[in-house]
Order: sequence, then structure tokens, then C-alpha cells
Amino acid sequence: MNDSMLRNIKSPEDIKGYSFEELDSLSREIRETLITTVANNGGHLASNLGVVELTVAMHKCFDSPKDKFVFDVGHQVYTHKLLTGRYDRFSTLRTEGGISGFPRPKESEHDPFCTGHSSTSVSAAYGISVSEVIKHSDNYTVAVIGDGAFTGGLTYEALNNAGRNKDARLIIILNDNEMSISKNVGAVSKYLTNIRTTKGYFRLKAGVERALNHIPLIGETLSAEVYKLKTKIKDKVYNSNMFEDLGFRYMGPVDGHNIKKLCEVLEECKNIGSPVLLHVHTKKGKGYELAEKNPSVFHGISKFDTDTGETVSKGANFSDEFGKYLCELASKDERICAITAAMSLGTGLSEFCNTYTERFFDVGIAEEHAVVFASGLAKGEMIPFFVVYSTFLQRCYDQLIHDAALQKRKMIIAVDRAGFVGEDGETHQGIFDVAFMNTISNFTIYAPATYEELRHDMYRAVYKDSNVIAIRYPRGGESVLPADFKPTYDVYDIYGDEDAKVTIVTYGRIFGNACTACNNLRARGKAVRVVKLNQIKPLDPCIIEILKNDSNIFFFEEGIQNGGVGEKLALRLLEAGYKGEYKLTAVDYCFVEHGSVEATIRNNSLDADSMQNIVGGAFVG
Amino acid sequence: MNDSMLRNIKSPEDIKGYSFEELDSLSREIRETLITTVANNGGHLASNLGVVELTVAMHKCFDSPKDKFVFDVGHQVYTHKLLTGRYDRFSTLRTEGGISGFPRPKESEHDPFCTGHSSTSVSAAYGISVSEVIKHSDNYTVAVIGDGAFTGGLTYEALNNAGRNKDARLIIILNDNEMSISKNVGAVSKYLTNIRTTKGYFRLKAGVERALNHIPLIGETLSAEVYKLKTKIKDKVYNSNMFEDLGFRYMGPVDGHNIKKLCEVLEECKNIGSPVLLHVHTKKGKGYELAEKNPSVFHGISKFDTDTGETVSKGANFSDEFGKYLCELASKDERICAITAAMSLGTGLSEFCNTYTERFFDVGIAEEHAVVFASGLAKGEMIPFFVVYSTFLQRCYDQLIHDAALQKRKMIIAVDRAGFVGEDGETHQGIFDVAFMNTISNFTIYAPATYEELRHDMYRAVYKDSNVIAIRYPRGGESVLPADFKPTYDVYDIYGDEDAKVTIVTYGRIFGNACTACNNLRARGKAVRVVKLNQIKPLDPCIIEILKNDSNIFFFEEGIQNGGVGEKLALRLLEAGYKGEYKLTAVDYCFVEHGSVEATIRNNSLDADSMQNIVGGAFVG
Repeated sequence: MNDSMLRNIKSPEDIKGYSFEELDSLSREIRETLITTVANNGGHLASNLGVVELTVAMHKCFDSPKDKFVFDVGHQVYTHKLLTGRYDRFSTLRTEGGISGFPRPKESEHDPFCTGHSSTSVSAAYGISVSEVIKHSDNYTVAVIGDGAFTGGLTYEALNNAGRNKDARLIIILNDNEMSISKNVGAVSKYLTNIRTTKGYFRLKAGVERALNHIPLIGETLSAEVYKLKTKIKDKVYNSNMFEDLGFRYMGPVDGHNIKKLCEVLEECKNIGSPVLLHVHTKKGKGYELAEKNPSVFHGISKFDTDTGETVSKGANFSDEFGKYLCELASKDERICAITAAMSLGTGLSEFCNTYTERFFDVGIAEEHAVVFASGLAKGEMIPFFVVYSTFLQRCYDQLIHDAALQKRKMIIAVDRAGFVGEDGETHQGIFDVAFMNTISNFTIYAPATYEELRHDMYRAVYKDSNVIAIRYPRGGESVLPADFKPTYDVYDIYGDEDAKVTIVTYGRIFGNACTACNNLRARGKAVRVVKLNQIKPLDPCIIEILKNDSNIFFFEEGIQNGGVGEKLALRLLEAGYKGEYKLTAVDYCFVEHGSVEATIRNNSLDADSMQNIVGGAFVG
Repeated sequence: MNDSMLRNIKSPEDIKGYSFEELDSLSREIRETLITTVANNGGHLASNLGVVELTVAMHKCFDSPKDKFVFDVGHQVYTHKLLTGRYDRFSTLRTEGGISGFPRPKESEHDPFCTGHSSTSVSAAYGISVSEVIKHSDNYTVAVIGDGAFTGGLTYEALNNAGRNKDARLIIILNDNEMSISKNVGAVSKYLTNIRTTKGYFRLKAGVERALNHIPLIGETLSAEVYKLKTKIKDKVYNSNMFEDLGFRYMGPVDGHNIKKLCEVLEECKNIGSPVLLHVHTKKGKGYELAEKNPSVFHGISKFDTDTGETVSKGANFSDEFGKYLCELASKDERICAITAAMSLGTGLSEFCNTYTERFFDVGIAEEHAVVFASGLAKGEMIPFFVVYSTFLQRCYDQLIHDAALQKRKMIIAVDRAGFVGEDGETHQGIFDVAFMNTISNFTIYAPATYEELRHDMYRAVYKDSNVIAIRYPRGGESVLPADFKPTYDVYDIYGDEDAKVTIVTYGRIFGNACTACNNLRARGKAVRVVKLNQIKPLDPCIIEILKNDSNIFFFEEGIQNGGVGEKLALRLLEAGYKGEYKLTAVDYCFVEHGSVEATIRNNSLDADSMQNIVGGAFVG
């Protein structure tokens, strides 16, 4: 790997003197590094390949960290990391203790804002730029945001707010790659395509002006009419861009892979002095043919072979199993609809999307809308499944209360990536969903540990339950369970010594670990049982009956302690007069750093060994 | 009061045959009823007066409940209630057991969707209209949404999603009254003003077309140029409206107080067959001079005198006291900023807004943006206060996690209307905030019971604490506390018999009730104490030390049980080996209907009498 330039870049200062030809060479080195590192570590590839030149140009024209860069959704920040003194550590990308796949203020002063969820950059950058105004500083704040993130309402709230502030030195770079994660959807996407295909907005403007100046004024009435209208048409065409309607000066579109052109237009942006929106056109996966052809596949990818693009097959997983069974249900029931917020691939909906076109809805990165829209569908007697990653479901807390549960809508939230997600780290952990859904009435939550249980829960949700039902399942595959575990698929199951007074209580994926811990202890002659909660909300009163005379209860929860099931169970036990010991092991501090799922489970004492040690304490002395 | 027409309307069918003159008379009766009823009961007046004719026209042209109306933010639904069989009960508006001030499916089949929070109507209506498409029905779905709600990102997410669906019989009525609750802010507001002031968008269109057709084609080169451009200009002008950019057919603006014109254009809308956005121009407070002049004051108002417009003065309240002290802090510290989401009046920020212009930000109805923007300000060394009603803070759960706490930003959330809000009812209760904020690390929560305590908490938040700090206080005034209560303003206070083994634990406004209950019991010779939590998160370990040897603990919480402080305390006590009794009284079912605050407190057993009865149980037998 050629890194002759890259290895000497310790800070953005080091590239200021480079010629455009040198910057092009540097970009080639960066691309090679990106492909090699992501092939080794997994990560976001296509989006990073798309913004190499843009990031280089930004560091050439601006002065980070004085000028501040906020990268939306943050996963396209690899080139920025390489240029800001993190090349040496770049091989540790996304590994435990290594550098993060997202901007991280802890890592570098060049990362002013942590981003992971979509559509926050304009708000954040606007806030920073306003603080600069108040401090009479002349620093620039630059947000880089993809066209996908433009489907998120937060972006509009921010544009609407920022557009009227003429003092802010705020530059919004719209990185338009014609798709976000899935193929981009919605009217805004179509709108951007229109801008691009009118062969240059500027050229149109110039042409209109030329033509207007040449309209001959013949005939009294007509000339007056035309004269008045010339001004109006001019106003209309000059301000007709949606971004200009929102108060921004619009520049572009510019080829996002031409550093020289980018630098020219960035310098122009700096001189405008009021909020600017620069429209940059890039190609996702640029420079790596396999990724250019299949940007969705190379969006977020695990380790792969750089020649073939193939990843190590991991076999079945919850997302795919969910998608398969949803198709099965939909084939027999025309009321079943599926909604995704730009995540059809990740959530296993590819087949549904192709088969049940009329009942499939990719609403864009718009989780709030997804829930209210689902509620509207439910009002119209449909049975909508909103399929969403746990971490993004946080965005719809109010809608789950106000638009779903309050109205007693029958709808199903399929919570994918529930629990630890591994390498994406602290912005993406799925550890809040149980706690925040727990706060809402008219709400049932299931936590299947196996595919078979998932199918039972889905069926029950569609045909037996009412109101809002959430089914949460982890990233990856099902738990390996002991052969002698006989699931009932009822609200709970018991494994181990039924009459034991020492009980492990848990739910979801880590039930497998609990069984192992239980069997290891039993092998040493300790009487232990595991109560597996299948329906974790509402907590069935029979659970309290089973537990209230125990001597020791150990609750293990792959989720935050605050507001989780373990806390609720403590209350119920205390109210029922429970006099034994109670120990809750859950995620204590809610921002859990990146690392493998296995390591994260271990670090949070939720692996079989930790469980065995903790529960073993009951038998000491 | 003349209600000769109104009293005979039992369903919308009854107005179908009325002439436009009769409908005008009916509108006058409706207006009179609105003014009289709101003067008696309190409620939303200005917005309801603004949509009388629009609502009448809708019921004349559409066929509810077959066609479905979704009113955004819902509080402008009074005329709709009067026309859909609820005139008889209208005098019970917003009273306990009476009809609600918002659309309520339980009340009538004419209310298909419950709305209270802003900007949900387009999503909901789109969902309903899609279900109609799937069912091959030809019913219309109509959303009525104010210009204020257009600042909410949810609206854009929905427009973006709906704009490309040409099958949906969806009509969005933009009720443009040039302000939402406070004077409208942001670029969209300016944009709407532009549309209005271009003397009719249609007229412009027609003029342009006329002019383009008359451009003579003289000279070879020019004519070719002009010819090509004619088409382009046409496209540009015809599609230059932002709503058309989003895929909607735009109609308007139309005078929203002219029923005949409204009916004409509504009929046109019905015939278009693809999503339509109809821009209607109305006047808030229309027909009641006092409200026309001061629409903000008459937005949500308590009982008032119809002649003078004066309300019964209620003396000091938390919002005003907060606003006053914030000004005091800001006068001495230039870092202090205030952010509101279109609620400067309700949150006591009027003085701040006028005095510290540069540090005051009304971001529109955009709570998500408000938090991320605040985080940006904090990154720039400002100390932002985001002042927001508890119920609307639900909207920023993800931003509080991802953009505030995760990044350890020093920012202060002033949670107004925390606890029961009374007459606004189930969509607006401030009973979730403690539970959902409880789930987040790097977060401190204070719950002052008096103005003096509020000031202490604000000072401490600004100058002593780090990370995110929430200060929550109720609607209305401070608690009346016993003269012998000596507050320390530390993390907790104790009142009553310090060594008692029977303890009431509580926080916030209802501490006053707890003191009364305690004193009543003490007067009967029972040893009782009250532990008042001043800082409710994190729960200081010393609290457990104080309580762990008690015989009986009674926790009273004006908030939902699930995930609340009472649950957390139960866990801590159980882990500490507490062997006594524990009883938690909190809000069990999280959708609490409308009624006075006092009645709601009583219905949830949080008044002094209920407390006394419950705690008295410890001394029986």
C-alpha cells in the first residue's frame, strides 16, 4: 500500500501547500487506505469513498479546528480522520479501544460534534455558528449532509430556523449522491434530481437573464405587461430554488470529485457572508468498482475480500428471518403493511419490498413520520409493521405515546438491533428501547431469543394482541439453547431446577448465557433455575408469584438499568413483601463504547462466566 | 345567545342544504357560542374563531365521517364539534367528564384521529388516505394545518413522503394565519408571506403564460434561445412553488372567511385526484375585536370577561418567576441564552425576548432542533436554557440522549407544565418527563416546590453542575408549605418527626400535600416524617441510608409509575436489604383525562386527604 504522502500528514496544516495534482495523488492513497482498512475491520465504505475529494478540499480551504466541521450521520468521516492526525491509529478503526467509526470529540479537537443519528448537522452547526456570532469571531462552521439526511424533518427545522440569520458564517454542503442508505425516496429526492438534470442551475439562470434582456418591447400593452413581468420572472427564477426559499444562498451543483473546482466554489462560499447551501454531486463508492455498482451493499459492511467483494457468510440472522415470516403473513393477509425508514436492506425487507409493492413504504429517514403514518394506516384497518433499529426508534418516543398508544392503535413495532450492536458504538447501542417503551400504557413488548419464538410473537401480535406491540430482537443470530429447554411461548418459561430458591431472571438473547451459567452451577450441585421472560411488558403477575419466596434473585438485562424490567420487577417484589436478596446486573452507564458484541456483553457482565460468578455468590458462606 | 340554527344541527348532513347566506348566519351563531363558552370555561379561542368559515365549508363540501378530517394540534376543532352533534354538550368543554378541547375518537366518529401535539396531521392523513387506496375506496382525507405547525419537521417528512403518491385522495389545507402561538418565525413564515404578497400566485402564473405566448421570435439565434427558454421558464414558474417542488398541486391563497369561495375551491380540490395543498388565509381571533388585536393572549386563555377580555388574575406562577430570574442571571452573564419552541409567552420569556435579543431564539415548533441547536451553542461556550413544556419535551428524547447527554453538554432544560396540566387533558399531561429523563446518564433533575427553590436550582445549574440539567416545575403557583419547614436546598429535606419509621417520600408540587397529611397524622399522635427529594436524579445514596431501616415507606409521585423515581428507589432499597413495607402511589395508566389540576391530583390519590388515608394504613392493627 502506497502511503508516502498520507503517513506524513499529522494535521490539516500539512496539506495546505499541496498542489491540486498532489491532492489528487493524496486522494488515491486515502482511497486505498479506506478500502484496505474496511476490508479488514468492516465499516462504512461506499459513503467514505464518495467524499474523499470533498473532505480534502474542505481541509485545504478551511482552517480546522478554528473552523468547525460537522459531518451528518458521521459515518463518512474516515478521510477527515486520516487528515487530522489519526492515520497512525486508523488500522484500529471500530475495534475495542481503537478509533471510532464516527466523529468523537474525545478523540480529536477536529471533531467538534458527535454525530451518528441522521439529520442533526444543520442544527448543530447553526448553534455553533451563532455562538461564534455572539463571541464576535469570524470562524466558519461547515455542515456536510447527504441527500438522504434531507428526508429527516430535523434538517428542515434547522434550515427554517437558520435561513433568516444573515450573520451566521454557516455553510451547508449538501452531499448529493442520489441515495442515502437505501435508494433515496420521496419528493425531495426527485427535486434534487430535477436540479441536477436541468443541466446546471446557473446556466439556466444565465440563459434566462440573457433572454429576458433580449425580449423586444413591441406594442404598447404588451410592452408594459412584459416589462412588469420581466422583473417578476427574474425574481421567480432567481429565488425559485427551494433552498433559496428557505433563506439560503444556493451554489452548485458542483462535481464533488474535482478538488480544484471544489476549492474555487468553497472560497466563493466563504466570501458570501450569509448562510450558504452548496450542492455537491458525488458518487457513492467512487473509485472502487464493486462499491460503485452496489453502494447499498457497501454502505455498512463486515470484513470482506477486496477482490471479490464477498463477506464471510454469517448464516441466518433475525432480520432475514423476520422478513421471511412477514412475507408469509402478508401472503395470507392483505392488511399487513411494512414501513421502513430508509433501512429496507438492513431490516430484511428486500423480499417484501419487491413482492408487496402496494403495502411497502420506505418513508425516508423519518422515524417520527413513520409512526404517525402507521397510525393512520391502522386507523384505516391495516396492520402496519414499522421495522426499525432500536437506536433510531428513540426518535419516535413522543409519537409512540401520542399517536400510537394513546389512540390504542393496533400496530407492530419490529425493533431490530435491540441490545448491543458492537462496532458502531455509543451512538447506536440498542439499549434504551425497553426502558422508554416501558413508560407507555397500551403497549406490549416481546423479546424472543430464537427464530421460532420470533415467529410465535409475530403471529400473536397480528392475531391475538391489541394496541401497540413491540417485538425486539438483536443484531445477528439466535441464541444457542440447551437441548432440554422446552419453550412454551407463553409469557414466561422456566429452565433448570424448577423448585430452586436461587433464580436467574432474564430475557432475549442472553437467555442462552443464563442457561449455560445455570447448568455449570447445577453441575457443581447448586440448585438454580432460570426464569425467561418472553413478554417483558406488561409484567405478568404470575411472575411475582413464582419469585416472591425465593432466597436470591439475579436479574440480568441487556439494556439500561434505569427504567428497565429489572427495576420494575424490584418494585413489584418489594410491594409483594419479598424478603430475599435481589441483584440487578444491567447497563449502568448508558453510553457504551464500540467493540465486538461479544466483548461488550462480557464487559457488562452479561456473559455466561460473569453470570456464573455473580450467581455463585448466593452459595458462598 | 342566538342559537336558532345551531341547536338544530345534529350532524353535518343538516347543513348540506343551507344557502351561503344561511351558512354565514350559522357562522355568526358559532362565533357567539365559541366566545361565550371559552369565556366561561377557558380554552383556545383565537384559533377557533379563525377557522369557523373554513370548518363550515369543509362540512358543506365533504362527507364526514366517510371523508376524514384531521385537525393539526387539534385545539381549533370547536366548530367541528359544534357541527358534529356535540352542541348540546358544548358547555361542558374541558371540564371533568365533559367534552375535550381536542379531537377525540371516543367522543365521536367524526374525530378519526386524536391530535394535540403539533405537526402530526399530514402524516396521519396520508396514512389514512393510503389505507383508502389499498381498500379501493374513494373517500377523501383532509388535513387542516396551521402555518405554525409547518415549522415542525414532521410536517416536511410527511409532505416529502406523500408528495410522490399520485393515487392518494389527500387534501392538505394550510391554514395560514401568519402566526402559530407566538408570532411565527423562520424562513417558511417569510416564504408564506412572499406567496401572499405577490398578489395571487395564480394571477402571476396566468400573466407569465400570457407574456410568454406573446414574445415575438425575431432573429435566428435569439428565437432559438427564446424558444428553448420559454419552455424552461414555464416549467420553472409553474413548479417554483415549494409545495409543488414537494409534489403537491398548490391552490390558493384563498380568503378563509368567504364560505362561497372556499366551497368553490374545495370542490376543485376534490376533482384534482392527486395530493393537493390548499393555502387558506385566515385571521386569528376573527370576529372578536379583542382577540384579533391580541391573538397570542387569546390563544389559550382561562375564564375571562367578554367585554374587557380580562382574566381573573391568578398571581405569581412558576413560568413568570422563572423568566424573571433568568433575566437576572442573563444580565450578569453574557453566556446565558434562552431557546423556546414557539412558546415565549407561555414559558415566561417575554421580558428576556425583548431585553436579550441576541441571545433569545424562538426556533418555531421544532423541539428536536431546539435541543441540537442548544448543544451547538453549548459547544461554543454558551449556557443555553431550553424552556419547554414537559409534554413537548417528549419530542426530543433522542436528541437529549444523542446530542446532549452523550456529548456531556452543559445545558439546562427548563421543564414547564411538569405534572398534571388540567383542562388540556390526555395529550398534554406532563407526566412522562421524569421517567424518560431518568433513563439517561450525564443528567441531573431538580424538582423545586417553591420559587425560592427554583432560583436556587437555576443558580446551581448554571454555576455548579455539569452536563445536562433539567429543572421541572408545574403549571401554576408554588406550594403552600408549613411555616416550620426550613428548606436546606440541598439534595433532600426532611419535615416532621425526624426519627419516625414511617416515611412519606415525594418531590415537587405535591410536597405541600405531604406536609399537610403528615401534620394531620402527627396531630393524632402518629410519628411520621416526609423526605422531600430536591434532586430527583441522580438519587443520592444518602437517601437510602436514611430510609433503609424504616418500617413503612410511602412514595407519592406526580408522574407515571413506570420508570419513575419510586421504582428506582424500590430497586435501591431492595438491593440495600430493606425489609419494611413499600407502597408507591403514582400515575398508573398514563393517559389521564381532562379536568382541573386539583381534581386530577385527587383522582390519582395525590392530595393531602388521600395521602393521609394511605399512610394512616401503616398504623392500623
